[in-house]
Amino acid sequence: MTTTDRRTLTDLLRLEDVDRDIFRGRCHAGAPLRAFGGQVAAQALVAAGRTVEPDRPVHSLHGYFLRPGRTTSPIVYLVDRTRDGRTFTTRRVTGVQYGEAIFTLSASFKAPEDSSEHQRVMPDAPDPETIEPLFPFRDASDSDAEDDDARLGHVLDMRHVPDRPDYPADGATRAMVWMKAVTPLPDDPLLHVCALAYMSDLTLAGTAEKSHHGEPGRLQVASLDHAMWFHRPFRADEWLLFATQSPSKADARGFALGEVFTCDGRLVASMVQEALIRRRAPRA
Amino acid sequence: MTTTDRRTLTDLLRLEDVDRDIFRGRCHAGAPLRAFGGQVAAQALVAAGRTVEPDRPVHSLHGYFLRPGRTTSPIVYLVDRTRDGRTFTTRRVTGVQYGEAIFTLSASFKAPEDSSEHQRVMPDAPDPETIEPLFPFRDASDSDAEDDDARLGHVLDMRHVPDRPDYPADGATRAMVWMKAVTPLPDDPLLHVCALAYMSDLTLAGTAEKSHHGEPGRLQVASLDHAMWFHRPFRADEWLLFATQSPSKADARGFALGEVFTCDGRLVASMVQEALIRRRAPRA
Repeated sequence: MTTTDRRTLTDLLRLEDVDRDIFRGRCHAGAPLRAFGGQVAAQALVAAGRTVEPDRPVHSLHGYFLRPGRTTSPIVYLVDRTRDGRTFTTRRVTGVQYGEAIFTLSASFKAPEDSSEHQRVMPDAPDPETIEPLFPFRDASDSDAEDDDARLGHVLDMRHVPDRPDYPADGATRAMVWMKAVTPLPDDPLLHVCALAYMSDLTLAGTAEKSHHGEPGRLQVASLDHAMWFHRPFRADEWLLFATQSPSKADARGFALGEVFTCDGRLVASMVQEALIRRRAPRA
Repeated sequence: MTTTDRRTLTDLLRLEDVDRDIFRGRCHAGAPLRAFGGQVAAQALVAAGRTVEPDRPVHSLHGYFLRPGRTTSPIVYLVDRTRDGRTFTTRRVTGVQYGEAIFTLSASFKAPEDSSEHQRVMPDAPDPETIEPLFPFRDASDSDAEDDDARLGHVLDMRHVPDRPDYPADGATRAMVWMKAVTPLPDDPLLHVCALAYMSDLTLAGTAEKSHHGEPGRLQVASLDHAMWFHRPFRADEWLLFATQSPSKADARGFALGEVFTCDGRLVASMVQEALIRRRAPRA
């Protein structure tokens, strides 16, 4: 990666217009040679959002990863205008590459309204500024590393919260991480939601795998689906706490839930993911 | 409802074959004049499962309710064979009525395999046999009531767990209910999963609305989406504990999560739903 390749999160979510309801974007790798699922989901949501009036923000999305995306060519996003209703707008997006559907997403949009409210209280977590960044090299001017961590370090500031003694001993695994975009994002609310979709794919599968750390063998992890609900407005270039837990792993499927809070304790999103988690026997 | 109309849960999930990948079913009401969403979702899953080899059980589904279904005519379920992969099979189902899509579902199927496991421990709950049934008239031979409760009482035994003093005071609302099919179901595992989809739509929105009980005005509740993950095998004609919580309500959208346990403490499914919950001002 040269300095000219150094991109912001905004750049990673940018799509080219191909025609009405058809968009195209390029994804970087998550696992080796595979397009990062969080970026695919985020770009699909950008595509859906482009076809909806901005006074109807997205409130939920459900996606399935059908095939591994590749980094060698762009992904084309085809938007189906499923419904434009009085209250709700629904879109379906199919991500296509080399003639095959690799990802499918449905998303729903709705104009905000007042209502009674409740929310879960934010769990206790240390101030993010007191935690070491996961990618401390992100500011280094000589960074020409080409690995994924270097790439992530240029766009995201991630700070893992050390495991807390007050996690309930209920059999679920838990983790918390603070995250924000390194570079300020434009004010477009859709962009902040898409940035959160990108970030959220970094937090869930790891929590499901946590109880099996240190087992022998090579680990294979692949996101199977991804769902998010956006409860309240937020900015993705300000600190967000991702509090995740995995209530179940069985049948090589790790299941994880997450909640996202702002620094001042507002619950802004929930997310769910199932991931295929296999451990291959070590080679003899 | 006459005695000849008295149907089992199996009957409520029965679909007629129209052509390859096209099925048709009739739904009873949930809210007045509206097809019950749990039955629509369950029938859509029956349709998807009919196109998949039985050695690949369903492990997840994601659905959106697009328009209210009607009880006045059948719903046609069109199955799209999205992918038949080496490990996973994916289907999309569109529920159509009067020429319009009312429901869309994606579901994923996979052959079982061994892996490391973990699961959340079942919460404390009293034995279902010690709790009064919600529909005590279900066994009455003279029941010719036509209301929804009578209909549900013929197919489901539901027993609400009184609110527990050990619910965490974390701002989320919580509820627990035991449920099982009144009549034994055939051994087909898909039928038990579809029965659970039917049941699950009865448990989530109410939990999200719980913090606002007693507020004045007429309540409007409509399921917006529905997602489920099936972690381990189970039978829906044996007692299942539905432990639900709502971490958020805002923007007239109540969000709820649930976990389903067998009597012996196995976590068999997780589920998520967002519902539109509006309270109309009382008429002057």
